[in-house]
Amino acid sequence: MLINGKEYRSVWLEGETLFMINQNLLPFDFGIKELHSYSEVVDSIRDMTVRGAPAIGAAGAFALALAAKAAPDNGFRAYLRAARDTLIASRPTAVDLHNGVQSVYEQILKFIPNYDHARQVGFLAAQEFANSSAEDCRLLGIVGSQLIPDGARILTHCNAGALATVDWGTALAAIRAAHRSRKNIFVYVDETRPRLQGSRLTAFELEQEGIPHAIITDSAAGFYFWKHEIDLVITGADRVCLNGDIANKIGTYEKAVLAHEHKIPFYVSAPLSTFDQSCREGKDIPIEIRSETEIKEIGGVLVANPGSNALNPSFDITPARYITGIITPKGVFKAKEASHKVTL
Amino acid sequence: MLINGKEYRSVWLEGETLFMINQNLLPFDFGIKELHSYSEVVDSIRDMTVRGAPAIGAAGAFALALAAKAAPDNGFRAYLRAARDTLIASRPTAVDLHNGVQSVYEQILKFIPNYDHARQVGFLAAQEFANSSAEDCRLLGIVGSQLIPDGARILTHCNAGALATVDWGTALAAIRAAHRSRKNIFVYVDETRPRLQGSRLTAFELEQEGIPHAIITDSAAGFYFWKHEIDLVITGADRVCLNGDIANKIGTYEKAVLAHEHKIPFYVSAPLSTFDQSCREGKDIPIEIRSETEIKEIGGVLVANPGSNALNPSFDITPARYITGIITPKGVFKAKEASHKVTL
Repeated sequence: MLINGKEYRSVWLEGETLFMINQNLLPFDFGIKELHSYSEVVDSIRDMTVRGAPAIGAAGAFALALAAKAAPDNGFRAYLRAARDTLIASRPTAVDLHNGVQSVYEQILKFIPNYDHARQVGFLAAQEFANSSAEDCRLLGIVGSQLIPDGARILTHCNAGALATVDWGTALAAIRAAHRSRKNIFVYVDETRPRLQGSRLTAFELEQEGIPHAIITDSAAGFYFWKHEIDLVITGADRVCLNGDIANKIGTYEKAVLAHEHKIPFYVSAPLSTFDQSCREGKDIPIEIRSETEIKEIGGVLVANPGSNALNPSFDITPARYITGIITPKGVFKAKEASHKVTL
Repeated sequence: MLINGKEYRSVWLEGETLFMINQNLLPFDFGIKELHSYSEVVDSIRDMTVRGAPAIGAAGAFALALAAKAAPDNGFRAYLRAARDTLIASRPTAVDLHNGVQSVYEQILKFIPNYDHARQVGFLAAQEFANSSAEDCRLLGIVGSQLIPDGARILTHCNAGALATVDWGTALAAIRAAHRSRKNIFVYVDETRPRLQGSRLTAFELEQEGIPHAIITDSAAGFYFWKHEIDLVITGADRVCLNGDIANKIGTYEKAVLAHEHKIPFYVSAPLSTFDQSCREGKDIPIEIRSETEIKEIGGVLVANPGSNALNPSFDITPARYITGIITPKGVFKAKEASHKVTL
């Protein structure tokens, strides 16, 4: 992705050091964080320095390589298993994290007890995972942009942009590709409370790309549906189940129901790492409940009634029947068929 | 309403001075604003010192009495007409404001050219309008609480509480009455971006009343519908049309569609002043578009991408077919019939 005229990925390795764009600072400051241990990556996932399912999948893959580097020969396997479990638990809803960490884990194990080689393999496997994830997203753009007609007014939720992936984005990959092919498009950006990834990150990416857009409150999308001013919806996903149900940022389900009611296409864009072949249906997905502070405070300032509690589920489930199609690197499929099609 | 152990109305007259609770300070500070001229009332409506359709209806009624007091004998009628038009334009979506201002206006005109008497009549008529509005809301509580079963988990949006009315509330009148009749209830409070009337004002009122509740982001309601943890929805309204369409705070429409999809009752609670006998359908209602600053800044701090625009429609239309019933002081009616029934 281009930021201030320079190409970046959201997470990348230089030698044996991991770097990531600090997404908590954007769009007000552009900062890069340098990480040397897997526990620093855990903290960065929890505090959302890095966020977006594919991006944290790659971060997790790199983190396991860092863990293998730090693991002693004596107790290597136990150390690595503990690192794997801690990493996966740091964002339970996104399956990319599980997939990224687990795939590097399995490759490393193959080379035990050749520990030094196993450690090298860790970095190579993590880099391969990240490259493959970025390539997936590039393909999502090519596939997804076909679904966007000239003149389309598109609604998106949260940030499914290049920042949320290693590069290119998922929903925004399609939007970006449509724009670059000179289609005239307009994007409604849900601000995405509580953490405002829409008004902070998606708006930032669209501005950098020169794509016409406007931020709206999450509640205002219904008004624009009612006015017939939204032609299609595209979001990302944190997990795609075998039956086509998806988990994504809280609020996605509401937009899917609204689109359904208004007979507007609702597309989900997902790289292969977001498919969970062990998840039968949406109800099986653990929903992360985050701190109420994210709702009650903004920038450290209390904005809600001090004596009231808040509930902060951070993801929701959108059943397959509300999804018009899932955009994958291998084509657009009906939600119910997508898991099967991508593994063929 | 009880605040810190003392009974208050949201707006009230003492002699010929108007007082109102400053709702922009709540829940962090409790302050009372004193107003001597109708233009101060216009400012207070625009900056939302007073908000909520019935409350601004009463504020507008009192404001026209203040205008009559200030109007010179020579040019009385023109002065009063200008005041009326300016007041009504200060919040175009809420019909209570039109109704409150217009009813006092018509009563004053009857006594021209007996100007001193007309001015006295202004204050009496405004007081009568406010009293009647409060009594309406007390009745809404009695009528609406019948719809709330013991054990109900209720979703509400924005603040349709005592603060939004002269007293008692509309949606919250029903909730308050159910609680006082010892029903075991729980209220999900939509925070209601951009101005957070839910997390600031509704949560404050519920806490003062000791009613169990939790604040959620506007986007999270869908998740609780999906989990079957919402049994009914009650909101207020800024206007009820002849065909049963309503206007209310942005986001109301989305909740109505969600309730419809989940076959959950969606009730609107409205005093008589909220019915607009001149409005055929929702499309006739002007939607106030407020400043993008309400979205891009919170507490004076920029929270969104600086280079992006925001669109801020502050109200939306919920068509009659999504409304299970309209709670009125005269009973609960189907949306399509309510306007007719309340004028019988």
